[in-house]
Amino acid sequence: MNMSAKIPNAGPLVAIGGAEDKASEASILRHVVSLSNVEAPVVGVITTASSIPEDVFASYKEVFSLIGAKDVLDIRIRDRSNAESDKYVDMIRSADVIFLSGGDQMRLTNVLGASRAIEAIRRRRAEGAVIAGTSAGAACQSRTMVYGGPADDSLRKGAVKMSAGFGFVEGVIIDTHFLERGRFSRLMEVGATNPEYLGVGLGEDAAVHFDGDIVRAFGPGHVILVDSSEIGESNVFDLADGEPVAVSNVKMHALVQGYGYDLADRRVLGPDELKAIGLERRVAYT
Amino acid sequence: MNMSAKIPNAGPLVAIGGAEDKASEASILRHVVSLSNVEAPVVGVITTASSIPEDVFASYKEVFSLIGAKDVLDIRIRDRSNAESDKYVDMIRSADVIFLSGGDQMRLTNVLGASRAIEAIRRRRAEGAVIAGTSAGAACQSRTMVYGGPADDSLRKGAVKMSAGFGFVEGVIIDTHFLERGRFSRLMEVGATNPEYLGVGLGEDAAVHFDGDIVRAFGPGHVILVDSSEIGESNVFDLADGEPVAVSNVKMHALVQGYGYDLADRRVLGPDELKAIGLERRVAYT
Repeated sequence: MNMSAKIPNAGPLVAIGGAEDKASEASILRHVVSLSNVEAPVVGVITTASSIPEDVFASYKEVFSLIGAKDVLDIRIRDRSNAESDKYVDMIRSADVIFLSGGDQMRLTNVLGASRAIEAIRRRRAEGAVIAGTSAGAACQSRTMVYGGPADDSLRKGAVKMSAGFGFVEGVIIDTHFLERGRFSRLMEVGATNPEYLGVGLGEDAAVHFDGDIVRAFGPGHVILVDSSEIGESNVFDLADGEPVAVSNVKMHALVQGYGYDLADRRVLGPDELKAIGLERRVAYT
Repeated sequence: MNMSAKIPNAGPLVAIGGAEDKASEASILRHVVSLSNVEAPVVGVITTASSIPEDVFASYKEVFSLIGAKDVLDIRIRDRSNAESDKYVDMIRSADVIFLSGGDQMRLTNVLGASRAIEAIRRRRAEGAVIAGTSAGAACQSRTMVYGGPADDSLRKGAVKMSAGFGFVEGVIIDTHFLERGRFSRLMEVGATNPEYLGVGLGEDAAVHFDGDIVRAFGPGHVILVDSSEIGESNVFDLADGEPVAVSNVKMHALVQGYGYDLADRRVLGPDELKAIGLERRVAYT
């Protein structure tokens, strides 16, 4: 089974675990901006997920301007007709970094799914633009998207709510606010339902850069990877909805900045190994 | 390395993850009472951990009376002089089930440590009495006791506060309210500091019976086992206090009622296997 992240497009993809504190997030956003390889990039902020787009845009405009964006575009797509409009599609086409804010991931997929806007985002990525998202804007990136589940114990049949995401990355399922909201049991449940997908649990001060088959962790927080590919015992198919799921041999890794993971080989990469891969790539690209 | 739970004494030991709702806990307490093998046992409730011992005792008196206790003793040890008094030591000596309430585990070890009361508890256990505890009363049972750590991200050097527990069971470290308070990162941190100990994370509606080398899960909730014995990459010894810990290959198991774990072989036991062990033992004891 090839579990590699088949990223069909060229541009860097970044998923951030969400953070209320924009100050601590600045180091993460600075890295996002740097991935564009543009001196002063245009950043387009899509606030569709949020119920307070004005406030959210204002705070991102401030921080992206501060860290060197040439322009910060207010891509305030609120409904499906906005998602078809030339105005917003043109903004997306001119952005070097497309940033998806937090909020409700179901709003994102419902409003943007099958629209000219999402098509434009995919095209920009194919052309090399950076796609980044935080919280809901991260959760939507996987092919199957987690959008709900109880905070206390999600390891119960049917407890984790999933639907179809944008599929910017294959082979993984992304969850956010992971340590802060105690979501370990959510990705254990997801893994029990289908062990094929690597759970990527992002802490609030943490992010990953999906770089081909390599996942690179950055930011001051933790990225927890939940590998269910070797699970043994489980009762999941025998249960009624709500009954507790038993599962054994779930493997977890806690990555911090400088660590990575090889999706093809399913193994953690230490800082030295990850640096070496970076150098190899830079040589290959020259 | 022998990781078996060396339980030096004969009586059953039960750890419960804590629960505010005594109604849902009744099935767990019923099982605790049944382990005494006494038709109508005397239950001694030690409320030392609690700051509201009167209320706590009243609710346990009600539920234990309801499920068939002959008598429920109010072992209200509040300080170290109480822990030396004949009154309470005599109560302990007459109890078939000794139940440690929730509250602050540090109060438990500080007040009972090296006292006549704890000596009497150990002696009763050697004579076959049941020792059971919930929340703080469960956490204190391991040799090293977790007593604190941030709710958001405990996988940071020095974040998890540990001290010496009563050591009713060896080879494990117990944490409680595990799924409800998102404490996965606490036991990952504990495992990184010393991979030798199996982390036993008890959900609020869950309990384990330590039966020699066999851990038996019961109650409607989850027991999460955190096995760090095969961890690879970690930066834990290089860090300053508060810096995030990287760790790979932490193995987790989610047990539900009817499942168990063999501490000597380090493997999950499914319901059929666990039942077979139960039968073997019953035959052996006849």
